[in-house]
Amino acid sequence: MKKVAIGIDVGGTNTAIGVVDQDGQVMVKNSIPTPSHGDIDRYINDLTNAVNELIHSVKLVNADLEVLGIGIGAPNGNYYNGTIEYAPNLSFKGVVHFVELLRKNYPTMKALALTNDANAAAIGEMIYGGAKHMKNFVMYTLGTGVGSGVVVNGDLVYGHDGFAGECGHTTLIPGGRLCGCGAKGHLEAYCSAPGMKRTAFEIMVRDNAVDSLLANKSFKELDSKAIYDAAVHGDKVALEVFEQTGKWLGQGLADTVHHLSPEAIFLFGGPTAAGEFIFKPTRESMEAHLLPIFKNKIKILPSELKPGDAAIVGASALVWKEIEK
Amino acid sequence: MKKVAIGIDVGGTNTAIGVVDQDGQVMVKNSIPTPSHGDIDRYINDLTNAVNELIHSVKLVNADLEVLGIGIGAPNGNYYNGTIEYAPNLSFKGVVHFVELLRKNYPTMKALALTNDANAAAIGEMIYGGAKHMKNFVMYTLGTGVGSGVVVNGDLVYGHDGFAGECGHTTLIPGGRLCGCGAKGHLEAYCSAPGMKRTAFEIMVRDNAVDSLLANKSFKELDSKAIYDAAVHGDKVALEVFEQTGKWLGQGLADTVHHLSPEAIFLFGGPTAAGEFIFKPTRESMEAHLLPIFKNKIKILPSELKPGDAAIVGASALVWKEIEK
Repeated sequence: MKKVAIGIDVGGTNTAIGVVDQDGQVMVKNSIPTPSHGDIDRYINDLTNAVNELIHSVKLVNADLEVLGIGIGAPNGNYYNGTIEYAPNLSFKGVVHFVELLRKNYPTMKALALTNDANAAAIGEMIYGGAKHMKNFVMYTLGTGVGSGVVVNGDLVYGHDGFAGECGHTTLIPGGRLCGCGAKGHLEAYCSAPGMKRTAFEIMVRDNAVDSLLANKSFKELDSKAIYDAAVHGDKVALEVFEQTGKWLGQGLADTVHHLSPEAIFLFGGPTAAGEFIFKPTRESMEAHLLPIFKNKIKILPSELKPGDAAIVGASALVWKEIEK
Repeated sequence: MKKVAIGIDVGGTNTAIGVVDQDGQVMVKNSIPTPSHGDIDRYINDLTNAVNELIHSVKLVNADLEVLGIGIGAPNGNYYNGTIEYAPNLSFKGVVHFVELLRKNYPTMKALALTNDANAAAIGEMIYGGAKHMKNFVMYTLGTGVGSGVVVNGDLVYGHDGFAGECGHTTLIPGGRLCGCGAKGHLEAYCSAPGMKRTAFEIMVRDNAVDSLLANKSFKELDSKAIYDAAVHGDKVALEVFEQTGKWLGQGLADTVHHLSPEAIFLFGGPTAAGEFIFKPTRESMEAHLLPIFKNKIKILPSELKPGDAAIVGASALVWKEIEK
């Protein structure tokens, strides 16, 4: 009998759902809007219908299939309580007992578990990806924000309250750039995709770089993909953005190493598609910030999760991790 | 039969040895010089003689005694290998196989384990002190340097290579003060006892504070005890030192919370004797730096280990932790 897991990624706009096999391959997937109506019961029902349809469609092809569980990645997801708590970008207010509500519709499902998206990505890396044989590693997800997941002795670190692994909100530059969370100088304000955009404009302002390939785009429009394309064409501003972003990120990763001494740090997300443009300065900066006992030991690796499916695949990995216990 | 553990603290100048009971009480203690001759075999022999003498003396009083093991706290101590590696302040060069060498003299001892002093203090807090019922906490030791020990799910985090928990060397102010390790801007350069001294002179320089109670001491002479005494007398410079140190430390502790979400952070060492002078601004700063999901949750507590014996007691706690496994 083929065993599969359901992965659900609750995003601000859409909720992606996929049926994932033990090798991390997405067999079928779908998505429904994450509603703005704030009615959690209605959302859970819509979600249940979408999940059941997917299971049905995959069973048409392979009748001999066991669905072991459902893993959910969600902003402000609390693993211990199965709740989403005060997520600023969702319409559901306060503490939402997500797993408890979903459990009513799946009373016999072996595993139902929820965590935040970056934690799910870390578990995905451990179950299906480049961290398969690692017991101690950290995952940084670089995108609109910067998330992270910490693995110690083969287990994800949830901490005392279920929320551990918010490395994007460590302070990089005291009193520095405004972060999305309202505080100042956080790593996320420098090393996320919008952070890179801000760096690009900072450099153009400093050098009055009207000839840069990046000088034709508005502050709203410019994204990390455009910066990468410009860097490939040798644009000086774009190249410096990667240098500077790597310097900042390396400083942050060194702080993480000094806390946890991991075997590797995985980087995931849009900006990492730039390869050595971002990996090289990050590696150099991290090494420069490390105590001698940590130098030339800790690998910085690209995530092996496929970009498009990573959120679903990561969430589904929670199921295998639960079954393991 | 009364069970006891030996605790050994390898310091730069002296090596302290104690016999510790299950309640963390030091029954007898002694110390020998940590040699400058660099001959590890000779040192291990001297240490063995001192340990045996202590065991003998305590057995004279209580014949019905079982020594379960020896725990060692040492700079750059590697738990996994039982080694001291490239410790800058010891005369033994390179990698010293401490546990292996000691094992030859104690072939039947149930537990022989080594880690760095801050990790040992964290285990001491967990076995004998204020963290007895905690599964997730962090220990910061403030002294000549700043050490730390991280506990996740009831176990000390050693990381991939045995050296995790060097939070004193996270970057607080990029490009800031020179740290003892040679890097710049590390937490240790601001929040250690010498860091507080530097802050005091920084403030006196800024304000030309010739009337401060601290203005009569040389840069070499001034210590954190004198700053505390001056603060008690309402000295403005001294009071600002604590305010500023707390601001910096709170920023660092928030970074630790964002990594690990502990139940509590314990502070240990000389500067913490100043009580609310240091705890209040540290708490306020940490809270100001925390994401909303972490606010008003994480306790900052004074260590319950007795200052004089803490190093021995912490090292001995390693033994009970090993026996537990």
